[in-house]
Amino acid sequence: MWGMIATWTMAVEGITEGSHILKNHGDAGDAIEIAIKAVEDFEYYKSVGYGGLPNEDMEVELDAAYMDGDTLDIGAVAAIKDFANPISIARRLSKEKVNNVLVAQGAEKFAHQEGFERKNMLTDRAKIHYRNRVKAVKEQDIKPYSGHDTVGMVCLDSHGKMTAATSTSGLFMKRKGRIGDSPIVGSGFYVDSQVGGASATGLGEDLMKGCISYEIVRLMKEGMHPQDACEKAVNELDIKLKERRGQAGDLSVVAMNYQGEWGVATNIEGFSFAVVKENEEPTVYLTKNMNGKCVHEVASQEWLDNYMKTRMAPLVEK
Amino acid sequence: MWGMIATWTMAVEGITEGSHILKNHGDAGDAIEIAIKAVEDFEYYKSVGYGGLPNEDMEVELDAAYMDGDTLDIGAVAAIKDFANPISIARRLSKEKVNNVLVAQGAEKFAHQEGFERKNMLTDRAKIHYRNRVKAVKEQDIKPYSGHDTVGMVCLDSHGKMTAATSTSGLFMKRKGRIGDSPIVGSGFYVDSQVGGASATGLGEDLMKGCISYEIVRLMKEGMHPQDACEKAVNELDIKLKERRGQAGDLSVVAMNYQGEWGVATNIEGFSFAVVKENEEPTVYLTKNMNGKCVHEVASQEWLDNYMKTRMAPLVEK
Repeated sequence: MWGMIATWTMAVEGITEGSHILKNHGDAGDAIEIAIKAVEDFEYYKSVGYGGLPNEDMEVELDAAYMDGDTLDIGAVAAIKDFANPISIARRLSKEKVNNVLVAQGAEKFAHQEGFERKNMLTDRAKIHYRNRVKAVKEQDIKPYSGHDTVGMVCLDSHGKMTAATSTSGLFMKRKGRIGDSPIVGSGFYVDSQVGGASATGLGEDLMKGCISYEIVRLMKEGMHPQDACEKAVNELDIKLKERRGQAGDLSVVAMNYQGEWGVATNIEGFSFAVVKENEEPTVYLTKNMNGKCVHEVASQEWLDNYMKTRMAPLVEK
Repeated sequence: MWGMIATWTMAVEGITEGSHILKNHGDAGDAIEIAIKAVEDFEYYKSVGYGGLPNEDMEVELDAAYMDGDTLDIGAVAAIKDFANPISIARRLSKEKVNNVLVAQGAEKFAHQEGFERKNMLTDRAKIHYRNRVKAVKEQDIKPYSGHDTVGMVCLDSHGKMTAATSTSGLFMKRKGRIGDSPIVGSGFYVDSQVGGASATGLGEDLMKGCISYEIVRLMKEGMHPQDACEKAVNELDIKLKERRGQAGDLSVVAMNYQGEWGVATNIEGFSFAVVKENEEPTVYLTKNMNGKCVHEVASQEWLDNYMKTRMAPLVEK
């Protein structure tokens, strides 16, 4: 058995590329890296990699992480600027003995010395989004922080090796240097090949309050099905945040276990995700939380066409 | 009941200061901040704050984190340079709605704008350590990475509020931008006032592979005594790391529950820690792992005198 599961519709082309590797008995590390890179490279996805929305200073600062479920190797970069594929730098860092998590200028220094591709990640489209938002915030009372669609994936290869990875540009208009859950082990991602893996997207500041990815893997270790583990982790954290803080941010998670069984849960409307498995073509699902149970439905071709049309629609500066 | 527990002998003056606040029914946030600040300010402790050992570029880059166990508010800074008290910046960040974790230049920008005290944190003593190490590495085959004595604390006040906090200069000669477990929630620290809190010190890259602080709090939530929770978490992670990677780095943890009961575990020789409680004067203990059970012994005055003498001994450039 092999398979991949990933957050958001934007991941479907990536996991399709990854699946070609897995089909040929390739490595879960190679498959997840190529899958995340595809999302990073596509300029119309405005929350990951090239085309990602900038911080308060109109700089695109990116976070990415990689974890190997066999060795528990972790690599991550955070608040890195001007490199084409943060995920590849994160994976490279996972092979170091120490110094596996590097931030900001230190991460850039390492990536430079290792010869990774330089690229100004700020697109004209992202600049228009920035300028429109600045104007909107000035004119009305719009919250600057919205949009946090991290791509997070879990992968199982035919040899039983599992990996997890994330990549994101984080909160639009975030403070310079802000990092969310994506580069943080246990919050944005966790994987153990003997159990399974999980990854999260949503409001990083709230996801990390529950170490949600670690918690899901732990529940699967206790024997829980990934679907039950995801629902329990999301519902309990949602309740806890509301009790302690009066409100809970967006929490969405995907998980897969060592047998290729998967699960998804969310506390929002309109969470989508993508799955591919040995016996299942790449598929996009939409999910809904109905009183704690999450129900998944295959996205229609019409929905998918409309999704891509919206992403690529001309953008007018206001 | 009130109390504090902290990693390493160096914390004893700090928790003594903190205990004055707790004794007077003060706040666990105020007590832990003043306690960590005392360690940051003392120049002879070479792994925290002023006097902390520098990175590969002879820059002192500091990490600190703060968590409130009532609200689950988290604040952290990582790879921050030239501010006197990273813990105070971390605590300040914990009160923001989002953008709670800031790194490097972004963290410095925030601290600057909030008016925190600037201070060049590199001491002459730290420079001598750096130059001696560079020479030793060149001449012999010494590993540049050693010494990672993070101060980590858990605090319970008389109102039942709990906090956790960390502060560190990280691995001596670390890569620029490297962060360990200390600013990472679930790994370096975790606290929930309804359960208890934990904090870790050792090799950050290995501690984070097990989200060890979250795991300890979780075990306490299941009803385990802090001592049993600490031992189980350390022993299981130690075994897992050895199975998967052939070796395990240094892992040491402290924990306290909402009743003021505490626990400590380690996989190394010579781990020390400090405790103060309503019914216990500030005390330094040494601990030993005897086949999985950790045995604590009060440090003698002779040991304590020798500790301070070693820390403050004249340092000769080689």
